[in-house]
Amino acid sequence: MSESTEKAVEELTKNVEGIVLGEDGKPLSKSALKKLEKEREKEKKKQEREAKLAAEKAAREAANPDYSKNRYGLLPTNKSQERTGRHRTRIVDLNGSPVGSTVLLSARVQNSRPTGSKKCFLTLRQGTVTVQCVLTVDAEKISGHMQKFAAGISSESLVLVEATVVKALQQVQSCTIQDLELAIEKIHVISEASRLPFTLEDASRPETDYETDPALVRVKLDTRLDHRPIDLRTTTNHAIFRMQHGVCRLFREFLESKNFIEIHTPKLLGAASEGGANVFKVEYFKEKAFLAQSPQFYKQMMITSDFERVFEIGPVFRAENSHTHRHMTEFVGLDLEMAFEEHYHEVLDLFDGLFTHMIKGLKERYAKEIEVIKKQYPFEDFEFGDSCLKLEFPEAIKLLREHGVEIGDFDDFSTETERTLGRLVKEKYHTDFFMLDKFPLAVRPFYTMPDPNKQGYSNSYDFFMRGEEILSGAQRVHDPKLLQERAETFEPPIDPATIQPYLDAFKYGAPPHAGGGIGLERVLMLFLNLGNIRKTSLFPRDPVRLNP
Amino acid sequence: MSESTEKAVEELTKNVEGIVLGEDGKPLSKSALKKLEKEREKEKKKQEREAKLAAEKAAREAANPDYSKNRYGLLPTNKSQERTGRHRTRIVDLNGSPVGSTVLLSARVQNSRPTGSKKCFLTLRQGTVTVQCVLTVDAEKISGHMQKFAAGISSESLVLVEATVVKALQQVQSCTIQDLELAIEKIHVISEASRLPFTLEDASRPETDYETDPALVRVKLDTRLDHRPIDLRTTTNHAIFRMQHGVCRLFREFLESKNFIEIHTPKLLGAASEGGANVFKVEYFKEKAFLAQSPQFYKQMMITSDFERVFEIGPVFRAENSHTHRHMTEFVGLDLEMAFEEHYHEVLDLFDGLFTHMIKGLKERYAKEIEVIKKQYPFEDFEFGDSCLKLEFPEAIKLLREHGVEIGDFDDFSTETERTLGRLVKEKYHTDFFMLDKFPLAVRPFYTMPDPNKQGYSNSYDFFMRGEEILSGAQRVHDPKLLQERAETFEPPIDPATIQPYLDAFKYGAPPHAGGGIGLERVLMLFLNLGNIRKTSLFPRDPVRLNP
Repeated sequence: MSESTEKAVEELTKNVEGIVLGEDGKPLSKSALKKLEKEREKEKKKQEREAKLAAEKAAREAANPDYSKNRYGLLPTNKSQERTGRHRTRIVDLNGSPVGSTVLLSARVQNSRPTGSKKCFLTLRQGTVTVQCVLTVDAEKISGHMQKFAAGISSESLVLVEATVVKALQQVQSCTIQDLELAIEKIHVISEASRLPFTLEDASRPETDYETDPALVRVKLDTRLDHRPIDLRTTTNHAIFRMQHGVCRLFREFLESKNFIEIHTPKLLGAASEGGANVFKVEYFKEKAFLAQSPQFYKQMMITSDFERVFEIGPVFRAENSHTHRHMTEFVGLDLEMAFEEHYHEVLDLFDGLFTHMIKGLKERYAKEIEVIKKQYPFEDFEFGDSCLKLEFPEAIKLLREHGVEIGDFDDFSTETERTLGRLVKEKYHTDFFMLDKFPLAVRPFYTMPDPNKQGYSNSYDFFMRGEEILSGAQRVHDPKLLQERAETFEPPIDPATIQPYLDAFKYGAPPHAGGGIGLERVLMLFLNLGNIRKTSLFPRDPVRLNP
Repeated sequence: MSESTEKAVEELTKNVEGIVLGEDGKPLSKSALKKLEKEREKEKKKQEREAKLAAEKAAREAANPDYSKNRYGLLPTNKSQERTGRHRTRIVDLNGSPVGSTVLLSARVQNSRPTGSKKCFLTLRQGTVTVQCVLTVDAEKISGHMQKFAAGISSESLVLVEATVVKALQQVQSCTIQDLELAIEKIHVISEASRLPFTLEDASRPETDYETDPALVRVKLDTRLDHRPIDLRTTTNHAIFRMQHGVCRLFREFLESKNFIEIHTPKLLGAASEGGANVFKVEYFKEKAFLAQSPQFYKQMMITSDFERVFEIGPVFRAENSHTHRHMTEFVGLDLEMAFEEHYHEVLDLFDGLFTHMIKGLKERYAKEIEVIKKQYPFEDFEFGDSCLKLEFPEAIKLLREHGVEIGDFDDFSTETERTLGRLVKEKYHTDFFMLDKFPLAVRPFYTMPDPNKQGYSNSYDFFMRGEEILSGAQRVHDPKLLQERAETFEPPIDPATIQPYLDAFKYGAPPHAGGGIGLERVLMLFLNLGNIRKTSLFPRDPVRLNP
């Protein structure tokens, strides 16, 4: 009985005096009564029809029982009802399973392709690994009902499959497991997928395919990001974020081997440091707090506490209203700070070792992931020698001028100039990575140490990958008087009162030190030449995106 | 000439007409003129006296030159003027230096103790390692001037010392290097320390000392935190934060070995998740954003994206106006989430391995640090067997009742009850760590999976260390319909519209999964029994502390 009819019938039974009242409590009109009567009639017929169909189905099944009944169907929601401990196979380990053995595995249905009414091919996926399965109707175990069920499983549903390992008649080109197939014995749905807003096939299509067929569906970046949990299922995204983990791992591994200590500094600050521009304000009980734009001040304080070598991996926040391919309002900073003995080039030497370790590590340990990503987004391999090229700012100016770029001695670089410089350096030195030392003092933060010999320059550096900046760093001013003076004479001036705890930290003996901050997503974007930083952030944030 | 006299003289010369005007521009009175004259006279005499003294000093020096002149003094601020590459020794490596060899090292002056006018003892420190140095006046190299200079170096100043390694006549009990001493040949100050707000000796004093002498200066926690960069220099704090790194390292190491991927999820959110209580609001351009109270929703979305096993180490923010020993408004979360096959106890088994690895790892790898911390803050060793004890909620209720605690079947624990339970479990099972499974559904977040068999319970767990909660976790609801229903019927209800992207993530096939979040600072506080969470956070944040 439909819900509305049910309601009407209820109304009828309630009104014992024979006067039928409507929902509004007033007696129904004659026409309304007639309508109601008709609806009841209709409902009754519907019920009779349904009962008849059910009886026919039962009769059919009794005459021709579905011998596959227990071999397929929907599983109830897993609430950890039981734990049998029965081993489930990982597709990636299938190569070790002998032909003829039975395996049990849970996996995602990449697609289900029935051929006629007797067969159904399914591609099953676990992460980025796929295997071809086939379900074949027979007279004993696999019924037509079961084939129909398998054919109807929606793409991206999760299933539990029991199957026999068989040798593939020919190499399965479309799957990562190519020599084996699975002959399905049982298939149950663990979790059903609704219709996706875009197919994974469209989301995974190689860029080169669009050249040959521009009519192919292209999933825009914004659509992908709106449905990020689906987009992240692509093989390419699995590879990208495995590599993101790799960047952090290589960074940490190298620094830990050099006696660095990992620290966690606060992101909620009592004062807007570094001048107060581009900082997010937070309602903090009855006060205001500010989100850290970098762990700069805190990692320096750790140096004054004699930790000597510290690093941090954590979020940094920038309230910049920038809408570019390389800016986000929140990103992951890989920061380090280090006390040195004589000269900040000791720290540059450490960075040299670090980046050599990271770039070589990515190339060697993630060769497979790089291949996967290249398939969808082809790119030229990242060029890198045995160690890092180091240039000084005036050399860069000279190189730019030699190639027709008009630029002043102390001008900061525009994005365009950086790119040109990257191109010229690559042509001359055959590297996609270089360090640029000795930036003009005026374009650096107030806590940057001036160059002791060359007026107007500073002991500071940026590192570049494919002509874009990925690290900024410097020797810092560790003398409290000079630091306060630099804050006050900075453009725009910084009120020392707003950074008093920071200034105070240097009053009790502070060693000379230097460091830098790396943008995690930028390193990966540029290493893979992906062209947009949002592709290397799981859930990117920009001035117009806070979701999902 | 003093500044005020100079000003007065200037005034006098300015008033050419012979009428002397005061600072207010009016002519000076006779008595004022007389006073001025006297001051000029006094100033003149002072100058003459100073000139005489200087001349005498010069004469003395000419007759008796300071043969140590180049062996001591203040160094100019290090701006990386030069790089000689000369090796500097680490105190910790001194044991390898032969007696009689010359070493160069930069270190902090822990203290400087002159004895008469011929000798001066200094304790030099690098991080937590100390060595005794002695400076002895002789006729050739070390002058009385140099001894005076060394005696006057303020505690905590940084110095560069050249010295000869000598055998200590008797064990130096007060230093970590006990068999060797350094005979100072040269000593220069790299960075001078102002007078500290408290001494490191007071900040490092063993708690037991106060029992024997209650009059000793005690540095209060708030004073320490106000001057955290100084407080962090104590040996105890160095050990604590080395162990904080250790907790993260052990956590990551175990999970990486189990194929977990490290992720970084956003801290700026477009909607206040989990009901919107206790969440910090951020001004986000012209909108509002919210600070993540946990990476919960995001790590679950990663599971729906088939990453299967993910972890994150990052800040979490709680706008709770709690003033307790164990709450902070910002802390570091060690989070993990994992898809499972059959039963969420697969995840509890993983946690078992993880905590066994972490607790044993801390005990074994950080035995030295534990000893150091115990010296200042004595504590009973953390009791732990070979694996984790697991109890169910009703067992805990029974145990509590057996010991006279009045508690309902489905009551949540108060802090006091937790402590009592911890004590009872320790008495009965001899462990300071246990897992408590099967919490009542009503006291858990809406996304917690109900127990399929026992009405009112859920597939959720807390872990305890010394009777305080350090982890909360559960099997999560992965069925989108059940999840929405749970949100709507939750107390207080959660509007599904506010968590739509999260709900949507489960519509496209989601595996059963479970996980949990660990509070980094709590784990360390409880392992070391330090009694206040602020002691295990570098720069703690609470409702009344945002600085430094």
